Amino acid sequence: MEILSGVFEGKATGTPIAMLIRNADARSKDYSHIADTFRPSHADYTYQEKYGHRDYRGGGRSSARETAARVAAGAIAKLFLETQGIRCTAWVSQVGHLILDTPIESLQLDLTEQNDVRCPDPEMATAMIDLIREVRKAGDTIGGVISARITGCPAGVGDPVFDRLHADLGKAMLSINACKGFEYGSGFAGVTLRGSAHNDPFYTEEGKIKTRTNYSGGIQGGISNGMPIDFRVAFKPVATIIPAQESVNRAGETVAVEGRGRHDPCVLPRAVPIVEAMAAITLADHLLRQRMTQL
Amino acid sequence: MEILSGVFEGKATGTPIAMLIRNADARSKDYSHIADTFRPSHADYTYQEKYGHRDYRGGGRSSARETAARVAAGAIAKLFLETQGIRCTAWVSQVGHLILDTPIESLQLDLTEQNDVRCPDPEMATAMIDLIREVRKAGDTIGGVISARITGCPAGVGDPVFDRLHADLGKAMLSINACKGFEYGSGFAGVTLRGSAHNDPFYTEEGKIKTRTNYSGGIQGGISNGMPIDFRVAFKPVATIIPAQESVNRAGETVAVEGRGRHDPCVLPRAVPIVEAMAAITLADHLLRQRMTQL
Amino acid sequence: MEILSGVFEGKATGTPIAMLIRNADARSKDYSHIADTFRPSHADYTYQEKYGHRDYRGGGRSSARETAARVAAGAIAKLFLETQGIRCTAWVSQVGHLILDTPIESLQLDLTEQNDVRCPDPEMATAMIDLIREVRKAGDTIGGVISARITGCPAGVGDPVFDRLHADLGKAMLSINACKGFEYGSGFAGVTLRGSAHNDPFYTEEGKIKTRTNYSGGIQGGISNGMPIDFRVAFKPVATIIPAQESVNRAGETVAVEGRGRHDPCVLPRAVPIVEAMAAITLADHLLRQRMTQL
Amino acid sequence: MEILSGVFEGKATGTPIAMLIRNADARSKDYSHIADTFRPSHADYTYQEKYGHRDYRGGGRSSARETAARVAAGAIAKLFLETQGIRCTAWVSQVGHLILDTPIESLQLDLTEQNDVRCPDPEMATAMIDLIREVRKAGDTIGGVISARITGCPAGVGDPVFDRLHADLGKAMLSINACKGFEYGSGFAGVTLRGSAHNDPFYTEEGKIKTRTNYSGGIQGGISNGMPIDFRVAFKPVATIIPAQESVNRAGETVAVEGRGRHDPCVLPRAVPIVEAMAAITLADHLLRQRMTQL
Repeated sequence: MEILSGVFEGKATGTPIAMLIRNADARSKDYSHIADTFRPSHADYTYQEKYGHRDYRGGGRSSARETAARVAAGAIAKLFLETQGIRCTAWVSQVGHLILDTPIESLQLDLTEQNDVRCPDPEMATAMIDLIREVRKAGDTIGGVISARITGCPAGVGDPVFDRLHADLGKAMLSINACKGFEYGSGFAGVTLRGSAHNDPFYTEEGKIKTRTNYSGGIQGGISNGMPIDFRVAFKPVATIIPAQESVNRAGETVAVEGRGRHDPCVLPRAVPIVEAMAAITLADHLLRQRMTQL
Repeated sequence: MEILSGVFEGKATGTPIAMLIRNADARSKDYSHIADTFRPSHADYTYQEKYGHRDYRGGGRSSARETAARVAAGAIAKLFLETQGIRCTAWVSQVGHLILDTPIESLQLDLTEQNDVRCPDPEMATAMIDLIREVRKAGDTIGGVISARITGCPAGVGDPVFDRLHADLGKAMLSINACKGFEYGSGFAGVTLRGSAHNDPFYTEEGKIKTRTNYSGGIQGGISNGMPIDFRVAFKPVATIIPAQESVNRAGETVAVEGRGRHDPCVLPRAVPIVEAMAAITLADHLLRQRMTQL
Repeated sequence: MEILSGVFEGKATGTPIAMLIRNADARSKDYSHIADTFRPSHADYTYQEKYGHRDYRGGGRSSARETAARVAAGAIAKLFLETQGIRCTAWVSQVGHLILDTPIESLQLDLTEQNDVRCPDPEMATAMIDLIREVRKAGDTIGGVISARITGCPAGVGDPVFDRLHADLGKAMLSINACKGFEYGSGFAGVTLRGSAHNDPFYTEEGKIKTRTNYSGGIQGGISNGMPIDFRVAFKPVATIIPAQESVNRAGETVAVEGRGRHDPCVLPRAVPIVEAMAAITLADHLLRQRMTQL
Repeated sequence: MEILSGVFEGKATGTPIAMLIRNADARSKDYSHIADTFRPSHADYTYQEKYGHRDYRGGGRSSARETAARVAAGAIAKLFLETQGIRCTAWVSQVGHLILDTPIESLQLDLTEQNDVRCPDPEMATAMIDLIREVRKAGDTIGGVISARITGCPAGVGDPVFDRLHADLGKAMLSINACKGFEYGSGFAGVTLRGSAHNDPFYTEEGKIKTRTNYSGGIQGGISNGMPIDFRVAFKPVATIIPAQESVNRAGETVAVEGRGRHDPCVLPRAVPIVEAMAAITLADHLLRQRMTQL
């Protein structure tokens, strides 16, 4: 990676920081067979319909290679957040049917980077790795869920109507390749609760107002309340599989598409730094906005 | 409602349409008891922290009364979408533990507006209404899920990276009061599937390219593929309940807060038109953007 | 004028302030003769071409009545700027051939509001008023120039590339009805100078860095330098005149258009508060942006 | 220059086109003497005040080197405009006191690129070149004016209130380094005219509605009327001169600054392609916006 602008003598100049990552490992010919064919559940067809012309090599702009830029930008956002005592941490909490349901408070999040699947529970990590290996052997793929927590965010961050903090976090996550869903706090599961069980009672501890539970996920009315911000992101199984699949070509004729090129059976472990990066970018933006409203 | 601008002789002028809805039914004194007290899981505390000053009457700007404006704007977006053959339809598919799991294709969506809970299945509607009555009697509240489908959207709508169609739909939904989650297509449930089962095979029918299944939810790579766009939105139980709850006041002292004023035990039926409106606004925006890229 | 939102107990809540000014003095029938006719140098024709449909009453949205909203918004921006010790002052410095060329430092700007033409030089004001009367008597109109100065703006405000402070001020002024030009500092006249005469030498006075001259108009590289921000705005003669003019109707047929309705011979005095308002709004925006970049 | 993205097989893909121009001719050490010193009428001081840290080499981001990127982007905008029959042409119409006042219709604009100063009148070009040589010999600099015309723009382009076509053109021009003023149509000179002389009468020619004069500069009410769009841009004398000038350093101490490095006595000829590029970009943006409003 090369920094093109915005840094002088090791320090940001305040003007935009441009970075360039060249793909040094492209194998474009792996993709010649899809120049005229639409891979199922890829963006080949929709790009063709939208633009009438597409760079089919590696999926072009729809490739998750694009997320490398997000991680680079997120690294800078994280440096800024660190000076504010804020930290964004993500981990794999589900692969296929394997669900890590340990409460966050009982997890050792510093173990996340200790294994290949980026799950903070070593036993579950082993099971997930085994499952992914089995799936790969079958030439198939599998989805999962990433959980994330932002700590150290002060109360008052986020906008009240359209740009609610969780709405912007949600959009940021949903903009990541293969993402199918976003929930924060109690999420979809919380809808079965009664209000009397779901409400988070306020109390004061050492002069600081806190809530006893955190079904709100650290955000109330779109604005942070000082509690940890918790959210979960669903990722579908990777679309590229090895076995032949039914599809059509540009002429609308039935064709069989087989997977070629490098094949990733599960996007989850690689998506952890992307989720962290997008969370950091979103939060940094809102922190800067927040400065505008403060006297 | 009064139209202030943008319409002349019954026709839009092309310039902004301003509308004004005055709250003719405000009972501000119902809220005097919360001028200095923070209601649990409301936005009272976060507004206070953000702005240092808040209009406590009716929750001020954090009140869902604000969504009336969205429904008004959505009505205009729907008129535009209608001319393009596009329709956004939403319905209540879950209240508490009561889940309507009939496949969308088997639902009679025109029954949605036939009952008070806006559920297209009459039997389930009756059960939901009974549950909501029971919850209200207890002075409590309950959450649920709204499902939605957009039909008639052509392929090619949506942007490829940050403004993916589902990312903007997600943000729009998450900006609605009480929303806790958003998923589209196979969503959170789809993560347990293998790619071989989850991919949507392409085929041609009457010269039109379609997919045999629709786990993609009508969107691939952030761009519509011409299939129905399906999504689901989670809503938490309403925060205002009648029984006394633990909380604090602005001084940080422990207080008990009781519910007063009008009390809505379940936001779901009222949220259906809001979901439809936000979907219509988001889609109309993307359709207009799409025009820019077409020769 | 009615304040619809954003103010509670006499204080801004931090959320948007909506204001409504109803036109209590509309005489729509004055305009029935232009329903199908294009007035020369008005926006009738361009609106028709753009929208295919227009509200012809009073020029619709192209009417300078719209600027009342700018003045209302500017009044709030001015309140904010006042707390920062910043002041935006404008005055009429030219009407037709009558040019007030007194250096700003020698003007008594507090005399501006003492006469009908808003010129701070009483003698020149009288001459300008006489000229405007003469022009009105002829059923004709005349243009002029408004000069403006912003004082108290700290160094460092403005963005370095596209959103330069003077670029945003320029756009704001050019967006005012009848505006034909914008210049700041030495402007168009300064192009005849050599760099050795035009450069503003720096010096230090009471610990503060200043410039001996101010050809830069208080802005260098798009960013304020702490000196007064000086700019000038050109306004064309009002397009509505009483004598018959050659024009065409929607069918493209030659017609004669005569002025009817109320007739303003010179827009300059009324434009002074608009220029001040737009300057205040632009500067307030940049001040808020500036807060984001400060640690 | 290298195209990094957005082009495939010689054709735009519809996604962003990124271009990279590396400065292959940097002489950073030419600038070491200004690391702590503020050059008069440069952006050294304002950057220091804004960011507290600056890349002093070559003026950093405030350098007009930045405009190379605008010309590259403008080249693409011009390709698009060409397909619509639209052309943006600029030329030097004033250097110091030398003013080309030939009416545009009498100029041979295709001669502009035939001489070093980019003035379409060969005799005036020679005089301008002589003046610039004389100024350079003195180690001094001189300003001037660039005139521009956009032809082929259909009626209906531009927005009615804040984003008027001339307001956006003005902002684009004012964002160019050294720009001090912008006027369109009759500009500052037109303010001395009476409305009866200034209004542009409409007439029909070969079924097309035109105006007999063009004081409006092709724009009425912020929207193009189909006539040529004419505007003028003022550029100050370059700030870098050879003779010693009074200034201060970061400590506020008086210092003398001398010009070093390469020295450009007049920015005008080089600014012609920048003006054309910014005009093309602005117009392309508005044309794309216009598509959104058309059925």
